[in-house]
Amino acid sequence: MYRTNTCGELRLTDKGKKVILAGWVQKSRKLGAMTFIDLRDRYGITQLVVKADAEKELSELAESLGREFVIQVKGEVLERESKNPKIPTGEIEIGVESINILNKSVTPPFTIEENSDGGEDLRAKYRYLDLRRPPLQRALALRHRLAQEIRSYLDAQGFMEIETPYLIKSTPEGARDFVVPSRMNPGQFYALPQSPQTFKQLLMVAGYDRYFQIVRCFRDEDLRADRQPEFTQIDCEMSFVEQEDVLNTFEGMMRQMFKNAIGVEIAERIPRMSWYDAMDFYGSDKPDIRFDMKLHEITSLVQGHGFSVFDSSEYVGGIAVKGCADYTRKQLDELTEWVKRPQVGAKGLIYIKCNADGSYKSSIDKFYSPEELAQVAGSVGAESGDLVLILCGAKRKTQTQLGVLRIEMGNRLGLRNPHEFAPLWVVDFPLLEWSEEDQRFYAMHHPFTAPKPEHEQWFYSDKKEDLERVCANAYDFVLNGTELGGGSIRIHNADMQRRMFDVLGISKEDAEYKFGFIINAFKFGAPPHGGLAFGFDRVCALFGGQESIRDYIAFPKNNQGRDVMIDSPSLIDQSQMDELCLQSTAENK
Amino acid sequence: MYRTNTCGELRLTDKGKKVILAGWVQKSRKLGAMTFIDLRDRYGITQLVVKADAEKELSELAESLGREFVIQVKGEVLERESKNPKIPTGEIEIGVESINILNKSVTPPFTIEENSDGGEDLRAKYRYLDLRRPPLQRALALRHRLAQEIRSYLDAQGFMEIETPYLIKSTPEGARDFVVPSRMNPGQFYALPQSPQTFKQLLMVAGYDRYFQIVRCFRDEDLRADRQPEFTQIDCEMSFVEQEDVLNTFEGMMRQMFKNAIGVEIAERIPRMSWYDAMDFYGSDKPDIRFDMKLHEITSLVQGHGFSVFDSSEYVGGIAVKGCADYTRKQLDELTEWVKRPQVGAKGLIYIKCNADGSYKSSIDKFYSPEELAQVAGSVGAESGDLVLILCGAKRKTQTQLGVLRIEMGNRLGLRNPHEFAPLWVVDFPLLEWSEEDQRFYAMHHPFTAPKPEHEQWFYSDKKEDLERVCANAYDFVLNGTELGGGSIRIHNADMQRRMFDVLGISKEDAEYKFGFIINAFKFGAPPHGGLAFGFDRVCALFGGQESIRDYIAFPKNNQGRDVMIDSPSLIDQSQMDELCLQSTAENK
Repeated sequence: MYRTNTCGELRLTDKGKKVILAGWVQKSRKLGAMTFIDLRDRYGITQLVVKADAEKELSELAESLGREFVIQVKGEVLERESKNPKIPTGEIEIGVESINILNKSVTPPFTIEENSDGGEDLRAKYRYLDLRRPPLQRALALRHRLAQEIRSYLDAQGFMEIETPYLIKSTPEGARDFVVPSRMNPGQFYALPQSPQTFKQLLMVAGYDRYFQIVRCFRDEDLRADRQPEFTQIDCEMSFVEQEDVLNTFEGMMRQMFKNAIGVEIAERIPRMSWYDAMDFYGSDKPDIRFDMKLHEITSLVQGHGFSVFDSSEYVGGIAVKGCADYTRKQLDELTEWVKRPQVGAKGLIYIKCNADGSYKSSIDKFYSPEELAQVAGSVGAESGDLVLILCGAKRKTQTQLGVLRIEMGNRLGLRNPHEFAPLWVVDFPLLEWSEEDQRFYAMHHPFTAPKPEHEQWFYSDKKEDLERVCANAYDFVLNGTELGGGSIRIHNADMQRRMFDVLGISKEDAEYKFGFIINAFKFGAPPHGGLAFGFDRVCALFGGQESIRDYIAFPKNNQGRDVMIDSPSLIDQSQMDELCLQSTAENK
Repeated sequence: MYRTNTCGELRLTDKGKKVILAGWVQKSRKLGAMTFIDLRDRYGITQLVVKADAEKELSELAESLGREFVIQVKGEVLERESKNPKIPTGEIEIGVESINILNKSVTPPFTIEENSDGGEDLRAKYRYLDLRRPPLQRALALRHRLAQEIRSYLDAQGFMEIETPYLIKSTPEGARDFVVPSRMNPGQFYALPQSPQTFKQLLMVAGYDRYFQIVRCFRDEDLRADRQPEFTQIDCEMSFVEQEDVLNTFEGMMRQMFKNAIGVEIAERIPRMSWYDAMDFYGSDKPDIRFDMKLHEITSLVQGHGFSVFDSSEYVGGIAVKGCADYTRKQLDELTEWVKRPQVGAKGLIYIKCNADGSYKSSIDKFYSPEELAQVAGSVGAESGDLVLILCGAKRKTQTQLGVLRIEMGNRLGLRNPHEFAPLWVVDFPLLEWSEEDQRFYAMHHPFTAPKPEHEQWFYSDKKEDLERVCANAYDFVLNGTELGGGSIRIHNADMQRRMFDVLGISKEDAEYKFGFIINAFKFGAPPHGGLAFGFDRVCALFGGQESIRDYIAFPKNNQGRDVMIDSPSLIDQSQMDELCLQSTAENK
């Protein structure tokens, strides 16, 4: 037996017990003739003490221990003289009677503490050492806990976890598929799934009624910041359900996850917001509702006063930034430059300062009287001491820019506490998006998403404006301004599917080629069904109060898709290439 | 709302309730003016009845329903006149008030019942229909339940489920690796893991203490019957443990799985058998201990009686087959042919019939007196009425043949009830296997497996016979004659690892090239650790009392590695090949 206890469990009530502990030397220090050692394992840190009257051999051994040595110690649980209230074991220490070095360690390339002195690249290379640090241990422990909560909740709700294959078929639009050459079928390839979408719908056709899976998905795309070529989804599908059934089911799951994993109680009913309201009031299809600062349209109010920039705009809108009337010229110039960056793309920024003394100062003073400015300020909800920020231009584009500005101001004002949680369902997405460029409709979600039943008459209309106002039975789960998941009620009726393809300009032949397999399966009695998927990596990060998903994945890849720890991807043997009937045309070969 | 209840839940106590059900038409039959319909979903079957006095429209609609139509019905829960005690809903039926066809179905290509009339290929092609059949629904439900039990047990034991990457690095000996070309790193490849072995050991180095994962693994090899290119493992590793800790932990897991998933109580302590005993008494390293029929060595007893076949054999052994003394000449000839098949490989078969009248009849009558035959029979445990079967030759080879014969006789005598469970740990495997051909030792498990502490002096000896008797801290979990899993305590000490490579004739340079990455990680304080992995597909099949794993995998591949449902693997677009910088040299291209 290597240990009687872990390094996190002994308390004052264990005083006098003879124990054996094992773990890593976090640090050791000599105090006169005594040596103190912090012994660490996954469960905590326990202080060891080699007393001044210990045998010489033991004292010397204790002094010889380096950082990250793995040791086993026998000793007695003692009450500490100077207690450490910061750690659960802080009232005791182990009076060491013997030390057994289980393994030595060379000096680690960076400090293994709450905050490391190692740079990102070095820590990535020695990921197994970085993973010893408490923040990463907490991150992976949270991930484990969340996965357990998800499974226990869905199991209790009658969902079955069913594993779908990873070696599937490349789709005709599979540009982002990773492919896998088959040795047994030379010249042929499997593909790794971007999601189990087809399979989960087949499981509904097969009558499994309630399916889920915590499943890896793969995408061979240029990695934007904080994306991974392999990522994990909570994937779900239900039969004989309407949208409300799905939303209620997964609200329950989120509530259990919040409560049991991080001790947060969220509202009994998560608010629902239509996509239109989200755009109009937050300039985003994933609003952060932890703070207010809503967008207000002021187009009619400000037009016709001789300010041509406003007069020629489809939309003028503003936000009221609390308590920022004292922004300096320099701050406002900086903010103007900020919104003009290509990432935001505004042409300029108009402000109105609502001074504490009741006066108004604005960049458009000469077009508007103080009373008119007061009216504008009032209509965006500004009060004395607030700063009104105004953008104008094409409606959706300007709303989006205002939305980005809103988030930025929220950040600057500290309104986005990562440990405060404001979940939200965004619903009633438009079913179709018109592309001016291609002069055709595209499915906003995917071509299997069903229109809302009450909009069906428009769906079957030939008028563009009717089709544009059809809403989908689609929904996104948004947390703190991040989309964590989404899904839809699927079309299960062959006629409606045919109509959808017509609307999208997909011919019968094309539909057969692209989707024939699933359309065929649907002929054998597909039930009404719908589902959704959550991005589990990001769920974990947000629950942990972090922006980046990287610490919530044990062995992540960098943004060139490389695992620098194992140095992968890499060249393979020519013999392996030959067996696969493959030749490389890459220049670095 | 599509339904108020499932098709499995209504009982006589619900009599009089107005309900809505939805599901598939299992069958319908007309009885006079009444129509009876069996409505099926995942949860069960409920009988619907459209009464003789129903409106004409409703009656006609009911009569028009085809097999596998998806319908929604409203009606009242009635007490059945002729109850069906075979199904839980058998005391009630639904008096139908309205029927809504949610989806029609074309005629399925085979019957969707307990036993289908469809051939294997047809059912594979329409897997989503085969999956509707009760045996497959039960199989996947059992799989889900087992996974849940595993997770709840290991979570309670302090294990963390940690996801390891699927896009890893091809190993120098990765002949069986599936590889994945990287578009972002042209000419370079990831590999899919054959197991997360390296990563789980790194997690121990990283201090995670107790890790598990239910994880997909991949192997691009010729598929023997009932193997899959992708398969699922229950993968576990623990730090600061000795062999007994590991065995006890996973005995607990198995006990919970047996009890909670299939209601079977297994012994408090699963028996442990040394590899030597397994070979000597069962002729197998995975003994089926549901029945006795042990092997007995009779070499010294039978040699020296002039029968040269025995006299020239290293080993002569036999089994006593209960109650088979009345085997006919024909049966014995057939059995002789059976053991001479290449799959068994015996040269011949000797028998002794222990007749009920006390006489003996044997194929070696002329070399042995009846008294001598009686002595042989007695020493293999045969009694009056039994048949003794004897093989001879090189020791381990003959034991293995006898072991195969033992299993066959167990099958013939019906001693292998698939719903009776006899778990077993096989322990004390030899650490090393000597290859006469290569004149060197190979690791029986893998080169990171530790010798038993009490055999260390032999491990450091230079004598071949010392090295041959070193046992490993390795263990297999065996159920009903099938190995379901195995593992070992790993070497965590650099000196011992160096010695292991020496013994295996692996040079320092070679070790660095093949295992450098993990050896390097181990320099930073690797704890003592060990673990094991179970083949989850086979665990599910055996718990379900089945031989084949295929029904326990939702979407399996055939033994050419093909998914015939989605027709994969397949050719991919030239543009995709170009992006990956690959050319195919396959002839079918």
